[in-house]
Amino acid sequence: MDKQYLLKPRRLGIDTHQELVVYMRGDCHVCRSEGFDAHSRIQVNAGGRSILATLNVIHGDWLAPDEFGLSESAWHALTPQAGERAGFAHAPTVDSMSAVRAKIYGNSLGDAQFNAIVSDVCKGFYTDVELATFLTACASRGLDHGETVSLTRAMINVGERLNWHREIVVDKHCVGGLPGNRTTPLVVAMVAAEGLVMPKTSSRAITSPAGTADTMETLAPVALSIADMRRVVEREGGCIAWGGAVSLSPADDILIRIERAIDLDSEGQLVASVLSKKAAAGATHVVLDLPVGPTAKVRSESDARRLGALLRDTGEAIGLAVRTVITDGMQPVGRGIGPALEARDVLAVLQNKDDAPADLRERSLQLAGAIFELAGLAAEGSGTVVAAQALISGRAWRKFQAICEAQGGMRTPPSAAQTQPVPTPREGVVSAIDNRVLARIAKLAGAPGAPAAGLDLHVRLGDRVEQGQPLFTLHTETTGELAYALEYLQTHPDVIRIAGDSEGGSPSQ
Amino acid sequence: MDKQYLLKPRRLGIDTHQELVVYMRGDCHVCRSEGFDAHSRIQVNAGGRSILATLNVIHGDWLAPDEFGLSESAWHALTPQAGERAGFAHAPTVDSMSAVRAKIYGNSLGDAQFNAIVSDVCKGFYTDVELATFLTACASRGLDHGETVSLTRAMINVGERLNWHREIVVDKHCVGGLPGNRTTPLVVAMVAAEGLVMPKTSSRAITSPAGTADTMETLAPVALSIADMRRVVEREGGCIAWGGAVSLSPADDILIRIERAIDLDSEGQLVASVLSKKAAAGATHVVLDLPVGPTAKVRSESDARRLGALLRDTGEAIGLAVRTVITDGMQPVGRGIGPALEARDVLAVLQNKDDAPADLRERSLQLAGAIFELAGLAAEGSGTVVAAQALISGRAWRKFQAICEAQGGMRTPPSAAQTQPVPTPREGVVSAIDNRVLARIAKLAGAPGAPAAGLDLHVRLGDRVEQGQPLFTLHTETTGELAYALEYLQTHPDVIRIAGDSEGGSPSQ
Repeated sequence: MDKQYLLKPRRLGIDTHQELVVYMRGDCHVCRSEGFDAHSRIQVNAGGRSILATLNVIHGDWLAPDEFGLSESAWHALTPQAGERAGFAHAPTVDSMSAVRAKIYGNSLGDAQFNAIVSDVCKGFYTDVELATFLTACASRGLDHGETVSLTRAMINVGERLNWHREIVVDKHCVGGLPGNRTTPLVVAMVAAEGLVMPKTSSRAITSPAGTADTMETLAPVALSIADMRRVVEREGGCIAWGGAVSLSPADDILIRIERAIDLDSEGQLVASVLSKKAAAGATHVVLDLPVGPTAKVRSESDARRLGALLRDTGEAIGLAVRTVITDGMQPVGRGIGPALEARDVLAVLQNKDDAPADLRERSLQLAGAIFELAGLAAEGSGTVVAAQALISGRAWRKFQAICEAQGGMRTPPSAAQTQPVPTPREGVVSAIDNRVLARIAKLAGAPGAPAAGLDLHVRLGDRVEQGQPLFTLHTETTGELAYALEYLQTHPDVIRIAGDSEGGSPSQ
Repeated sequence: MDKQYLLKPRRLGIDTHQELVVYMRGDCHVCRSEGFDAHSRIQVNAGGRSILATLNVIHGDWLAPDEFGLSESAWHALTPQAGERAGFAHAPTVDSMSAVRAKIYGNSLGDAQFNAIVSDVCKGFYTDVELATFLTACASRGLDHGETVSLTRAMINVGERLNWHREIVVDKHCVGGLPGNRTTPLVVAMVAAEGLVMPKTSSRAITSPAGTADTMETLAPVALSIADMRRVVEREGGCIAWGGAVSLSPADDILIRIERAIDLDSEGQLVASVLSKKAAAGATHVVLDLPVGPTAKVRSESDARRLGALLRDTGEAIGLAVRTVITDGMQPVGRGIGPALEARDVLAVLQNKDDAPADLRERSLQLAGAIFELAGLAAEGSGTVVAAQALISGRAWRKFQAICEAQGGMRTPPSAAQTQPVPTPREGVVSAIDNRVLARIAKLAGAPGAPAAGLDLHVRLGDRVEQGQPLFTLHTETTGELAYALEYLQTHPDVIRIAGDSEGGSPSQ
């Protein structure tokens, strides 16, 4: 190809998130001859590698006419080598989009079509706009059982699938964020202590104040490679690793970001997302926690039952034994909200401390118990007893320390520089807690970016509070973040609702 | 506000098309204190003005920590004044997106919801991803009659609406691209010559080799302000202006770009798009041309009838008299495809030349005739006669010249530097023409960017061609574009299908 049609790559340091963007001068040879303009989809070829990207056209001379710029995502995808120049062409049509359009117009899709869509999604062939189209089509038309199974299988097929060479490999997952619901480290410690294999991968926070990976990272390294995970699990039976480092079900990572951007919850997508991750991680027996409450993801018990059936049926179709546990999602679990504060709660439970949060302890025992029963290590109804023995005996605590050591060494969670109690504006009884607003306050306080930041909840539903008694304490690293959190709180005074005596039915006064 | 939270605006010259993007260093005070990251939606405030934009985070020092960058679209929307600094906040939630989600989950939307959505779309509150979600929801769930009317009304309400203070103001529109179908200048000339008022706004090409505005621009200026349009129409009864300069139905301009990106045709959106533009332009009586053919937008006669009924019913609901005319969409109209080549055909018809394309002439008479009948200037069945009189008498040609003069002066369309005939690969009968591939070839030849570029079609369906006889002639400004068009043609030899004698049933040989 004529050299004037080859441009020199330049890394611009622009973080466009996952969308691949390249930058080119409108007056360069390539733009002019190819007829590219802003938002053209183009194919970039360098050294036998190739990406599809969206073009942004540059007017001005901070980019040379024989250069093209790459966003961080495009740079990492193309990985240009020293001295290489790149060639350009109009991006080919993404054929699987015709299946997406067929879905929009009411056709049901099969294995081949979902495989093609998911494979193209993983190759980065879909723009964010096309991803939104696919997700909206699935949400509005709905996915039937066959389609949900096809999508789940397609999402498993497209990524790596771990094989642990064991008959039983257990896993757990909580559907829908409930602040502080940090049962995973406890469950892994209990089931691994009793000899089960649980190679757990967890996410970092996307919109919440802490993901399990964020919390665990205050206790031990979590960015394990697959080889690291294998080593830890071979030695200790369990691990608590960050899933982002191992790229299981990579399509899910791409789709979930757009789902959050448009705040779309589609049951079919949710089922495929959860189960594909578990299957890819090599699980055979999975317990799913479904918290139900007015400010949780699942709003009613009947929704939870329907979703549970969908999860179990789809699990069966792809060879996963799935048990669902419907739990209380009316208020946060434990006291801390934020990575280090949640880690402190986890340690208190593991160490059988008197002041350990009882709700976190109970829920962990319930979930670990469900795993023991599902895996055949305990009779129906006696799983919780097995779990409690692991905990009370100190075996779970020793196992947890061993896992932390195997992951790279146990750490002490940090403490925040500033704390500020937030008193109740009136006396009465705690009648409602808004999980979403509370999570937002913890984020404004700095979580999870600042691991020590967040808040400590001092009350639970039904508690009586006297005038001036603190409802929770803010933990922040800077006074600026403290001010942000307090400002937001002023506009959301009902985050913890206090019913007066006329409403609350409290006997006194 | 503390000065460290105010940043200096810098115009980066990055064309991101319609999406508003701002650029900020990840380590600046604002990003850190607000917790912004790549793809955060943020509100930018400067001098009492405010925009919502998507953030791209910069790593590196080509942007100063006290600066923020703006894409071209963001710069034009915010219009920062000299010395102004800007403040930032998280973007408020776009409330109307909850109506979009309601539509996804199967609820029907009413006037209030469509008004809120369309108003937010026009204010730039929707990201491209959210626009795709809205369009996909409307396409998959469909819009019922009431919803189509509500959406149409909302799209009219949000923009300017012209008032011509006449009882009858006519308009026309062609639904779906058919290359060369350049009837508008002819129809305007004929109906204005007979005393009707037709203030026509037309679009430039978006994906086609020429829009009516591109073709007309080779004959006269078309970028008229509303005041210019008024002056021309007061004097001559008609104009042919570029609609982009007057911003009628601005929501449509935003939505249509996303519809094209995802290649989505939804009838409800199409009806709202077409009728809102006509109503906003002040029309009372509208004739719509629906070409039907396998490579046209409307594929079958039954589709055309259903779409026609939807257009007429919705028109009635918003007070527009609509007539639809189903026409032949099997092949291009006229000979030229590309701005100047189509202008040449238009002039040949207006000047009653012997070699004027008969199909373009007939179709223009048919559409002008329909307008005369709809407006009550001709009895049913005799409209074409009135139109033919305007044409044959030379009144239409004189009116057209007068309109061009009023718009700023008549021009002679340019000629291309290079021409190259493309011969038939075999003898036989022309049995099919692919409108889409032919349009693509004209675009690769340089149309509409190079107004003289495009192609001249020498054959029509049913014509017999001998070995080596030219099917069409390419017109280009550069040898590079000629090579592109020829290369594409090699991979699409069936753009004009020639049936051999065994298939074609031709008598000779």
